Amino acid sequence: MKLSQSGEFGLIKILQKKIPGISSEVLSGIGDDAAVLKVPDKKILVTSDMLIEGVHFDLSFTTFYQLGYKFLAVNISDILAMGGRPKHFLVSIGIPDKCDSDDICELYSGINHIAGEFGITIVGGDTCASKQGLVLNGTLIGNAGDKTITRSGAKEGDGIFVSDMAGDSAMGLFLLMKIRMHIKRCESGNASITVQGKALACSDVLTLAGKHLMPRPVPLKDTRKVTSMIDISDGLLADLGHICDESNAGAVIHKEKIPLSGELLSVAKSLGRDPFDFALKGGEDYALLFTAPPNYRTNAYRIGEIIKKGRYIIDGNGKRTRFKAEGYEHFK
Amino acid sequence: MKLSQSGEFGLIKILQKKIPGISSEVLSGIGDDAAVLKVPDKKILVTSDMLIEGVHFDLSFTTFYQLGYKFLAVNISDILAMGGRPKHFLVSIGIPDKCDSDDICELYSGINHIAGEFGITIVGGDTCASKQGLVLNGTLIGNAGDKTITRSGAKEGDGIFVSDMAGDSAMGLFLLMKIRMHIKRCESGNASITVQGKALACSDVLTLAGKHLMPRPVPLKDTRKVTSMIDISDGLLADLGHICDESNAGAVIHKEKIPLSGELLSVAKSLGRDPFDFALKGGEDYALLFTAPPNYRTNAYRIGEIIKKGRYIIDGNGKRTRFKAEGYEHFK
Repeated sequence: MKLSQSGEFGLIKILQKKIPGISSEVLSGIGDDAAVLKVPDKKILVTSDMLIEGVHFDLSFTTFYQLGYKFLAVNISDILAMGGRPKHFLVSIGIPDKCDSDDICELYSGINHIAGEFGITIVGGDTCASKQGLVLNGTLIGNAGDKTITRSGAKEGDGIFVSDMAGDSAMGLFLLMKIRMHIKRCESGNASITVQGKALACSDVLTLAGKHLMPRPVPLKDTRKVTSMIDISDGLLADLGHICDESNAGAVIHKEKIPLSGELLSVAKSLGRDPFDFALKGGEDYALLFTAPPNYRTNAYRIGEIIKKGRYIIDGNGKRTRFKAEGYEHFK
Repeated sequence: MKLSQSGEFGLIKILQKKIPGISSEVLSGIGDDAAVLKVPDKKILVTSDMLIEGVHFDLSFTTFYQLGYKFLAVNISDILAMGGRPKHFLVSIGIPDKCDSDDICELYSGINHIAGEFGITIVGGDTCASKQGLVLNGTLIGNAGDKTITRSGAKEGDGIFVSDMAGDSAMGLFLLMKIRMHIKRCESGNASITVQGKALACSDVLTLAGKHLMPRPVPLKDTRKVTSMIDISDGLLADLGHICDESNAGAVIHKEKIPLSGELLSVAKSLGRDPFDFALKGGEDYALLFTAPPNYRTNAYRIGEIIKKGRYIIDGNGKRTRFKAEGYEHFK
């Protein structure tokens, strides 16, 4: 339905039906001036993320469903990076003329999908017109775990760990920008697709694009010994730089220990690109980057150590190079 | 400074200096993945409001300072309308090329002004580039008062009250759209300004424009007997309609009891306009509209009664007319 027919309040009524209602912790949800929440813990976590069309996403290669999923996923990732448990989500949407109520319902279906997986309730927000393309802002409230993990606790001698493969999302974005609409060719059973004159396996392309379009945050099982943590949104080196800044410490990374997926290796090789460019500088992996004492037992990948001062990367031949915090930064 | 020089993280550092630091209730504020808040009460209130350039504000007649003030004011108004006390604010800003860091600092000065008045701490948010004009989203967390007041508690026989003058903001916006840049003529000591061929007193114009640009929310002193409440953002009739909808009740309004300011009456008379068009259908007054038992003693203006069914307005001659919930609605 056109939004000029349903109007703002009509749309809110449609969305209210899509959204699971009041729970024991949500005393009053959507439809009043503010949501009323019962907070069982005495400490809460709050994070807010804004996504703007043309900056954070491109509707020519993301569906509304995927966008909704990722929108909540990036907020969940922030709460997990503090060792918390996500609970309540507020959704603000600025909607341009070109979108109709079906688009917005699809967006909410994507939000609901991952909200269901994590037991998150949508409790409020704002819905308005935008003359400026689609704009989303999400605020996620979580319960703090037994221990809140900031960026500032890394200590000299700690190991540096990453919870998942790095660089897939950045390569996925690179491919999506090249292929755009034609990604559907991969989905319709073709074995390969040509990018920059090279044939790439459709299965690789779909996996990497999927990591970019619908990143799935995964909490650490045991955070008791973790000394600092961040999620990789700006890029591995940039986010490690944030930990170093806040902890007033340095870091050494062993390049060959950085976990790379088979798909990234294969596609980078075909295109003649260095996969580490994507893994070190590409962002939006939403894996967790953390530090813990060197004897910490974990399934995560140990990629380096916290040192007193300086930031270095050591390659396979033992060559040590200083690194700058390269990664995505707005306005630059 | 150009944002292309400072970059995202440089801007965040500039803003952090402008923002009062950690308080006993803010265990960790700006600069981590999420803010960590200590919540003394067991019930919290949360509201989120999005403001988009070209829809909610026009930089040709609002300053960044005024915009920052109003941005937090509208969120405060939502928390007050639930009978709560505002505490913590998260600010997301999408910043277009045309803005520099001084503009954003001015915006924060406006936010800080009203934050200081209400004892609110800025605890986090998001800062990003926008290709789509300036976009703001605020999320305000408050403590619930002894009693949480929703829109749904109005009962037949209750009086309907409004806490302040209605229509000033809508007339202010009307004048600003006509005068735009020339409002400065009012500030530079002139006694009158010509609008639509009529001379208006500059003092009236500045008062009305000020109510639109920097609305000041005021909490009710005693909410113990209040049965339902909303803030007037969409317009008096539209917002009363929300109370009727949620309370499953009707309403009668006595037109001549609606409080109108001298400035609105004077300007409307000069322009040959009906002041009640502004008072009933204009929005953004951010006064509180509430219901309470008929014997309720208050400084607020009693403008009507809750009835079982139907929505009526009675004019000075006793003529009763049905009203529809007319007011601002996005997309329509």
